[in-house]
Parts: sequence; C-alpha cells; structure tokens
Amino acid sequence: MSRIITLTSDFGNRDAYVATMKGVMLGIDPTVRLVDVSHEIAAQDVMEAAFVIQNAAWHFPEGTVHLVVVDPGVGTGRNALAVELDGQFFVGADNGLFTLLSPSSGETWAGKAVLLDKPEFWYTKTPSSTFHGRDIFASVAAHLASGRSLEDVGSPTTNIMRLRWATPFADEKGLQGWIVQVDHYGNCITNISRSVYETYDRQRSPKCYVGTSILEGLCLTYDGATTGEPVLLFGSSGYLEVAINRGNAAGLLSIRKGDPINIVFSD
Amino acid sequence: MSRIITLTSDFGNRDAYVATMKGVMLGIDPTVRLVDVSHEIAAQDVMEAAFVIQNAAWHFPEGTVHLVVVDPGVGTGRNALAVELDGQFFVGADNGLFTLLSPSSGETWAGKAVLLDKPEFWYTKTPSSTFHGRDIFASVAAHLASGRSLEDVGSPTTNIMRLRWATPFADEKGLQGWIVQVDHYGNCITNISRSVYETYDRQRSPKCYVGTSILEGLCLTYDGATTGEPVLLFGSSGYLEVAINRGNAAGLLSIRKGDPINIVFSD
Amino acid sequence: MSRIITLTSDFGNRDAYVATMKGVMLGIDPTVRLVDVSHEIAAQDVMEAAFVIQNAAWHFPEGTVHLVVVDPGVGTGRNALAVELDGQFFVGADNGLFTLLSPSSGETWAGKAVLLDKPEFWYTKTPSSTFHGRDIFASVAAHLASGRSLEDVGSPTTNIMRLRWATPFADEKGLQGWIVQVDHYGNCITNISRSVYETYDRQRSPKCYVGTSILEGLCLTYDGATTGEPVLLFGSSGYLEVAINRGNAAGLLSIRKGDPINIVFSD
Repeated sequence: MSRIITLTSDFGNRDAYVATMKGVMLGIDPTVRLVDVSHEIAAQDVMEAAFVIQNAAWHFPEGTVHLVVVDPGVGTGRNALAVELDGQFFVGADNGLFTLLSPSSGETWAGKAVLLDKPEFWYTKTPSSTFHGRDIFASVAAHLASGRSLEDVGSPTTNIMRLRWATPFADEKGLQGWIVQVDHYGNCITNISRSVYETYDRQRSPKCYVGTSILEGLCLTYDGATTGEPVLLFGSSGYLEVAINRGNAAGLLSIRKGDPINIVFSD
Repeated sequence: MSRIITLTSDFGNRDAYVATMKGVMLGIDPTVRLVDVSHEIAAQDVMEAAFVIQNAAWHFPEGTVHLVVVDPGVGTGRNALAVELDGQFFVGADNGLFTLLSPSSGETWAGKAVLLDKPEFWYTKTPSSTFHGRDIFASVAAHLASGRSLEDVGSPTTNIMRLRWATPFADEKGLQGWIVQVDHYGNCITNISRSVYETYDRQRSPKCYVGTSILEGLCLTYDGATTGEPVLLFGSSGYLEVAINRGNAAGLLSIRKGDPINIVFSD
Repeated sequence: MSRIITLTSDFGNRDAYVATMKGVMLGIDPTVRLVDVSHEIAAQDVMEAAFVIQNAAWHFPEGTVHLVVVDPGVGTGRNALAVELDGQFFVGADNGLFTLLSPSSGETWAGKAVLLDKPEFWYTKTPSSTFHGRDIFASVAAHLASGRSLEDVGSPTTNIMRLRWATPFADEKGLQGWIVQVDHYGNCITNISRSVYETYDRQRSPKCYVGTSILEGLCLTYDGATTGEPVLLFGSSGYLEVAINRGNAAGLLSIRKGDPINIVFSD
C-alpha cells in the first residue's frame, strides 16, 4: 500500500468540509499522506469529477486510494462503493463515476468492487443524511490506505451504475466530438482521443469548426501559432484541445463546456 | 501529541503568506503534519473563522494544534494566546475567537490558556507589526505540536476577550435566529441548533420565513423536496439550514449572511 | 536535505495538473513533503511567480526544493534548469525567473546551475510538448529532494536568461517606484525596499502620490490610521506598501499592478 489518499470533491476550499474529512482520516491512521486533487468540481457534476480524477489518478503510486465525493444523491438509497482499477483504489457514491473511470467495453467488476455495508468501518454507525463524505467515504478510504483489503471493508458486488462518456461520431469525411472540460487557462478539451483521431485522419489535413471559429491544421505546442491565434493540438492528457497561444480560448472563441466540435478532413 | 497542525486564515490562496507560515513551522519541526482548513475566511471576520474551525476541529485527533490567523488588530496592543479546549489546542490573537469556540456558560479558563509572552518561542524576537501569523503564532503552534506544553510557551492567563454568538429568540409560538454562514453550495446555515429547536417545536409543524420565501415542514435530506424546491433541514454540523435540492438557496431565495430566519409552529 | 518540495504555478486549483505533478513526485520518493505555495499566479506571469516564491522561499529549511512551473514557452526551445541559491534549490523553465530570485549584481552562476539534459531523471524520455511540469520539472524536483545533487540531474551551465526587477528612480527630492503586487486584501506592494527608502528619506516626512490619492506620513501598522483611511507602511516582506485599515486599498484608491508610486520628501 502507498498510504496515499487523494481527495476530489465539489466542496470548494472555503468551508470546513474538506478539513473535516481529513481530520477523520488522520484519526484512523495518522500516517496516511493526503493529497488534494480538486475541490472545485462544479457542484454535483459527476462527469467533471471523473474527468479530473482520471487525469491525475494513473500518475500516483500503485495502491493509492482516491476518495471522490461528488454525491448529489447523498441521503437517498444510492449505494456507497469502493473499487480497484489497475492497482488504484476509488471510494465514492455509486452514481456512474466508477464506470466512467473504466470505459473499456466487456469489462467485469467481479472481485474488484465492494458495497460499503460494514458500519464498523464507518466514522459513525448512524451516518448523517447529508455528509457521507465524512461519515462513510473518508473513513473507509483511511482504512483501505492503512492496509485493509476491499473484502474487509465491504461485500462484493457487480451491480454498478453505468454512465458512459459520449462517444465522438465519425465517418470518412470527419469527426464530431464535444468539449468536455474548459480548464483554468481557457483551453477547451474535447472527448476526441489521439487514437480515435488517428483512425480517421489518414494524414489528411483537419479543418475544425468550434464556437465562432474555423481552425486549420494541427500544432504540436501552444507556441505553434502566432500569439493570440487559436490552435488545435493534443494536450498532455492525450485528447484534442482548442487553445490560444497566451490567451483564453473559451472566452475569445465563445466556447463552452458541452459545445460540439466538428473536424472535416481534406487532402 | 498528534503532531498535526491545522491552518485557518483570511490570507487567501494566492499570496505567499500561508506558505511562509508553513516554512516557519517545518523549520522548527520537519515532522509536523500540516492540514489546511480554509484560507478563504472573509477578511478580518473573526466569527466566520470561529464557525469554520469549530466545525472541523473536533474531528481531528486529540492533541491537534489549530492555528487560526484572522487578526484585524495585528500590531496593536491585543494579546496573543494559546488555549486548550477538550484536548485540542488553539493558537491565535485574542479577539473573541477563543470564547466563541467554547460558548458554555460559567466556564473558566484557569489552567487552559496562556499569554504568548516568551520570545524564545517566536520566529523572531522583534516581530513585524503586520505579520504575527509568521512571527509569533506559527512558531508557537509548531513548538506545541512538537511536544511543548502550554506552560512552556506562555504565561497563564484568564483574561480573555469575550465574544458571544447571537442567541436565537424563542417563545411558545416560535423561534427567531440568523443565517451565520452561506456555504459553497449556497446552503444557508442558521444559529438554531437541533437541541434549541427541539426544546420548542413539541412535535408541531414548522413554517419558516426567510429571505423571500415561506417554507413548510422539515426534511431529512436535500432530496426530501422536488428538485429546485427549497428545504429546511438539519445539516451535518447539527444546525438548521435552508437548502435547495440541487440548487443554490442563497442566490435563488435572496438570502445573505446575517439575515433573520423566523420559525412559527402550528399544530 | 529537507525532503521538502514547495509548488508554485499558474495552474489554478480546479484541474488535475497540480495533483498530477504530486503523483509523479510521490512515485519517485513517497517520503517527500509537499507544500503548496500558490497555484493562482496570473497565467504566464513570471515576475509574479518570482515575487511570490521569493517571499516564501527563505523561510523554509535549508535544502528545500522549490518547484516553479510558470512556463509560457513550454514545448519551445527554452531551457529547463535547476539552481541553488543560498542553500535552497529552484527548478523550472529558463525564462528569467532565476535571475529575478537573485538580483545581486556581479553574481555568478558557476557551480550553482545545471541544464536539465539527463532524460533518466525525467518522468518520460519523450516529454509531451505541453506539460513539462509533469514530464521534467516535478520529476527532477523529487530526485533532488530525495538526495540527488545538482550535478547528478543536469550539466553545469552559466547561460541563464536575465530578467531584472524595475528599479525605483531616486533623487534628492524623492523616489518613484511601481506597484508590483496587489495581495488578497487589496494591499498594494511596491518595489521600494526599506533600505532604498532609508537611503533617501533622511528622516524627512514623505508625501505619497499613488492612484487617485495623496498620503502623508509613514505608519507602523495597519491600525496606524483611522479605519477606512489609507496608510503607507513597510509590509512584512520589507517593501513599502499602500493599505487601508480594514479596507481594500486597490479597489478604493483605484490602484492596479504596474501603477507608479511617487514619494516626495519634505522637511
């Protein structure tokens, strides 16, 4: 075990919620290492949480526990889960997050997922109806990070809510995808991966329609265009993105999360 | 000792102030564990700092040191203090914070509070007039976390500035309280605790007047109302709050921190 | 070695970029201590990054490694460097940052700076063109913090890009400087150090022209003026600043980063 726990939530950094979860975890095992991923996930946006944690998670040492608390259904009948994916552990509410993290088709959860139904690993045997992050998830994450196995903290399950990333459309002429994230710089990240792109481009030159702009050609770096000009490039996470060299693409090109992006190839 | 130090301030997360305090503390004891609570307390808002730290503090292991630097009087004659409350330590300026943390009446500070008057535990014997967080408080917090006692770092005092939470009014017909915090989600948290509420409700049904709205009945969870409808519930910290299921109550109901909330009971 | 690594960037706290660098570093050495300085540096503002890290760095234990990722030229030919200054290590892109940190004239980098040209200390031998923070800088910082020397991780160089702080003008009548930072409180920090100021004031009284205001006299603390009135004082980092006692000077006096400030002395 790495004894590392990462934290991702929509709690913001202003209130006591995040520190409360950290207090609970340090009370269970004072030697765990706590690393914030983001607490600025848009409120109740499970897909954004999945996008952010999957960009960070695979860079952590094997055995890291990723606590993800974006939980619009807290206090209702939705399940609490912990799963293992490629040597990393994830703890959170069953609201589609886990299937987004592992989008490979035909995949089975057998032996890799448990329902958190053992109150002896919770912070309190009578959880509040509004803060399972504190009362269940943080506590289970700390037990996992300090050496407990999935089987210790819950009962095996394969009944996991499915949510799927929208898949880009493609035909011989081009591709249509969507903007799935606008980052801190205003870079607009699409759901078009390099492998999907390379299946279709066949070394033809792309023309890209997005927001109020038409972009031609791919660049390798943000600096591949004149300062202030938009560029189309593959970002560090391997997805196609629209950026402006030293500028804010989302603002200047009027692009918002969820907007379509169309790529047409020409010889 | 837990060797854990939490940090709460109104410094924001953009400048070097917070990291400077952390550098000072790690220089004194490189093994202390540092946990941020919030640095987004409204500038110089002692009551907000007290509200946030008291929501987090009691979930930390015994012996944790809570450094709270919200210090409008820095550089003036106000005292610097460290206190013990229920096995947790608090370090900061004497501006009412400490009495807010321990509102039980008839309480005595004898043996539990010290004046920070020993320069050998400060970062510098000639503190700046503007940054006692660095020059006094962080340094003393690190010495406490690394095993020094209250008596080591200061001289006993019982002369502590009193600030009291506004207390809700109540009579046979109902209760009046105030919104003391609007959290990241727009949930509006009142100063009406569950125990005060239950003293008066006598299982009658509440009608709540707040902002531009009238709410009827209590819910257990945010999901207890239709999406977009306001609800009245007890939040995870045990206080009555006004929320909107998957919405921002403060924005949609025009509620601001400090606003009154009136509860009228009917059979 | 202190095994401490601080992080400064313009990545913001919302995306996965910062946590990704932390995952990389913990994978190299799970015992390093990670301390955030600021991730809210204005996008690509090298001078702001230098200002913030130089305010924090010298308060950390000797041997601390400061990772600074504000890198407008990522993916272009600019060099990647690690340097030692006064017992502290700094890792980042060669864009002027390092010379800003060490403004003493006549200084030589011989034996204190290396070019990061050894791919065996990178996260990947084929770095992305957009995220050297992850692929080169974080990895090298972790190797330095875990005991590698500068000479291990790169090749000696003295070819370092020079960027200089604007220097205040001065004559017998007064001084002209600039606002180099507006902090979280709206305090406006100038580039006029106490030593420069004291060279010229000769105990005469200052009259200060800045933004829309004229200020007379120096105060020792924020409280040195009536609440709501502007004050001129030396802040905790030793530079002259314009503040308002319990108010926001930048907003109320219409002062922005980069604005001039004129001090005229009278007997």
